[in-house]
Amino acid sequence: MSKEKDKKLVEAITPMDTDFAQWYTDVVKKADLCDYSSVKGCMVYTPYGYAIWEHIQRILDCRFKETGHENVYMPLFIPESLLQKEKDHVEGFAPEVAWVTHGGDEELTERLCVRPTSETLFCEHFQHVIKSYRDLPKLYNQWCSVVRWEKNTRPFLRTREFLWQEGHTMHATAEEAIAETEQMLNIYADFHEHDLAVPVIRGRKTDSDKFAGAERTYCIEAMMHDGKSLQAGTSHYFGDGFARAFEIQFTDNENKLVHPFQTSWGTTTRMIGGIIMTHGDDSGLVLPPAVAPIQIVVIPIASHKAGVSEAAAALSDRLSARFRVKLDDSDNSAGWKFSEYEMKGVPLRLEIGPRDLEANQCVLVSRLDRSKKVVSLDDIEAEVEKALEAVRAGLYEKALANREQRTHSCKTLDEIRASLEEHGDGFIKAMWCGDPECEDKVKEETGVASRCIPFDQETISDVCVCCGKPAKQMVLWGKSY
Amino acid sequence: MSKEKDKKLVEAITPMDTDFAQWYTDVVKKADLCDYSSVKGCMVYTPYGYAIWEHIQRILDCRFKETGHENVYMPLFIPESLLQKEKDHVEGFAPEVAWVTHGGDEELTERLCVRPTSETLFCEHFQHVIKSYRDLPKLYNQWCSVVRWEKNTRPFLRTREFLWQEGHTMHATAEEAIAETEQMLNIYADFHEHDLAVPVIRGRKTDSDKFAGAERTYCIEAMMHDGKSLQAGTSHYFGDGFARAFEIQFTDNENKLVHPFQTSWGTTTRMIGGIIMTHGDDSGLVLPPAVAPIQIVVIPIASHKAGVSEAAAALSDRLSARFRVKLDDSDNSAGWKFSEYEMKGVPLRLEIGPRDLEANQCVLVSRLDRSKKVVSLDDIEAEVEKALEAVRAGLYEKALANREQRTHSCKTLDEIRASLEEHGDGFIKAMWCGDPECEDKVKEETGVASRCIPFDQETISDVCVCCGKPAKQMVLWGKSY
Repeated sequence: MSKEKDKKLVEAITPMDTDFAQWYTDVVKKADLCDYSSVKGCMVYTPYGYAIWEHIQRILDCRFKETGHENVYMPLFIPESLLQKEKDHVEGFAPEVAWVTHGGDEELTERLCVRPTSETLFCEHFQHVIKSYRDLPKLYNQWCSVVRWEKNTRPFLRTREFLWQEGHTMHATAEEAIAETEQMLNIYADFHEHDLAVPVIRGRKTDSDKFAGAERTYCIEAMMHDGKSLQAGTSHYFGDGFARAFEIQFTDNENKLVHPFQTSWGTTTRMIGGIIMTHGDDSGLVLPPAVAPIQIVVIPIASHKAGVSEAAAALSDRLSARFRVKLDDSDNSAGWKFSEYEMKGVPLRLEIGPRDLEANQCVLVSRLDRSKKVVSLDDIEAEVEKALEAVRAGLYEKALANREQRTHSCKTLDEIRASLEEHGDGFIKAMWCGDPECEDKVKEETGVASRCIPFDQETISDVCVCCGKPAKQMVLWGKSY
Repeated sequence: MSKEKDKKLVEAITPMDTDFAQWYTDVVKKADLCDYSSVKGCMVYTPYGYAIWEHIQRILDCRFKETGHENVYMPLFIPESLLQKEKDHVEGFAPEVAWVTHGGDEELTERLCVRPTSETLFCEHFQHVIKSYRDLPKLYNQWCSVVRWEKNTRPFLRTREFLWQEGHTMHATAEEAIAETEQMLNIYADFHEHDLAVPVIRGRKTDSDKFAGAERTYCIEAMMHDGKSLQAGTSHYFGDGFARAFEIQFTDNENKLVHPFQTSWGTTTRMIGGIIMTHGDDSGLVLPPAVAPIQIVVIPIASHKAGVSEAAAALSDRLSARFRVKLDDSDNSAGWKFSEYEMKGVPLRLEIGPRDLEANQCVLVSRLDRSKKVVSLDDIEAEVEKALEAVRAGLYEKALANREQRTHSCKTLDEIRASLEEHGDGFIKAMWCGDPECEDKVKEETGVASRCIPFDQETISDVCVCCGKPAKQMVLWGKSY
């Protein structure tokens, strides 16, 4: 029976290189991250998937609070008239919102949309509470779910309802608001690189790709295993546009009535999709230790032999004081357990058997590369700490190598086409004159769209990749999720 | 100016005994717990109010996890056909749900309700994942918001959208499910009594007052300052009713296909309303230390004098290692600050002035009774710890004394009327024959309704307070929020 299970587990995953989309779907399901529901486009976050989100929340929430932000909670609904107050914003979001029209048996006098984002609600509140420069800055964040009526959905990556945090801040000056926008982008980037082991490119969206109502949108872009890009976090600077639309004014320290400057910034459960597609392999999920619900699985080998079960339990208890540990002393075969926890992306496996008891040791196996190491129990905490950090560092290096291998510089549209033909999907670095028509044409003719204008600029050539006129900046192009 | 502010602050609160409802509204607003929004019946949880909820979440979430529960997240929407699967449930909830009828510009083929509670969604998921007795128990919880289209709303107590946690569990046997229902009620009760310092009565709802679809509903009932009762948490046993409706079956350990047994249990942000109405006074909010966003406020006295500001900052820093501390070194007057943090219900105030510096001491003032004590800085952590515990114990005793003073035993409807006339609102203990007609009649004739059948039974008389037939049990009656 255990043999059968082993086989079944391994067979059940489509190899990444055969069909990446199917591989993704298989991993999401086999690693027990979610379930489908009868609500089209909405997913059930099952315990293992939700626990990853809880660790993400814990770490980010701590960073937000360290930088002076406070959590709040705004209503789920936005009256249609409130959504319409800022023109660009409503144009961007109205086509994709869900509308509540009835409460019980009664038709509402005004439709309410289920929040797709909460700028309008925050602005209404800011209008109530910002009167003087002493009331600024307001540094707010909320954890909630939002709804966007997407046509094509995929678990974690694009769903009609998704979980996120949205920061909303108001400042006395434009400089301060811009600095906030940049600070939050940097927090997102650091979190990705350090905690999620996902290297990201920091940059600014082109005007055609900005958030509805924003003056500037900053973003981080991550390269997935298949060469497509994932927008993993955004940070927007609004100037005083919403403040004017919502008549938010304060008395500055020279006693003049002026408008404050605004930002918003967000990350979502799609980060979990990013983790899967950055680190996963043909054995399943691979989780960065910082957000892994189980960091270490302890598996007794030949547990019917005297003392083995007890030693495994003692090891698990001991490590639980510092790490997130699971002991699997079930009667499934060791082979089945190995496959199961590899599928679930548990960073480290500790095997302990009869011979290990005598030698006061165990075998430490890394999910990164299945490397095995016999380690003494004397100093097991330090060994585990080191091994977890090695997983993190190794994941980051692998992901960075994948990105570098998939990044190419091109000077002409022909070069872009040739690069995609030769190397497959990836990032293309190419110069741009700043004209939205060229941006559109690159997409039409090559299939790659502008991902961002990276902060770290290089000079690939002097002229626009499309029109040949003088270039203003280097743009990162690619296909995206 | 500071005098003026002092006056304004104090004047702004309606005394409790003048108009309790207005006092409540004043406290909620002046203590900065929430803001009104243009979405009728929905509130904005502002930082101070939301922080109380975060502390409640942190403590309860920890208790849930200690007892083996896992967090999940289910969709926000329920298709109409899914809601209709369990007959009693849909009858109870359909009249008060919000309906989504359009996604973007398109009319949906099936209406979706915004979840008023998630039994149906959990059941759909359980149907997917429960196959064998090895899959049981399933012990799930989710933190989210739910929507019920209430006509009359009040901040925290009754709002169209509110925040809550809902636990949903499935068990192999009825006994195990009932034990779970009781365990969770006890966790709620302990949390109220220990952490919130709110004494509660544990009991069972009468059949007419059960949750829609439940076989049994257990509850905890708390006595508010004005003599009305607040239902502060509920725990439901469903038998296998939903499991049958949703065709959830598992193979038991004798290889028979059977239905599992189910529970659900919930607490909401109305607990914050309960804290306000249990502990508050004419100076504002009084917060139990376990959930107070600020446990200690440090206020320098005569801070222009040499060393005072520095000493206050040092004291605040030192205490921050163990407590949630705020230093107010603003240029507002000490009197204004006293009123402000009393209004916000901060349990302890530490004053430190020039004379205290020399003596290496500070003045500790309790929010419970404004008692002052000079304490040495040598052992300030232990003094603060003791004082916080004294606030907690004192709040509990005061609340218990209020409840006891407002609880009366009655043998006839006339005695109930006389008691209410003489003592005002409160709990009435009276016997009941078990007939729903008597239950209705008590309410019609006296205005008090059944709150619960307490677990701790007493014998007030041998016969029903209403019909005079043999009594089955003692019921606790009262008016409620």
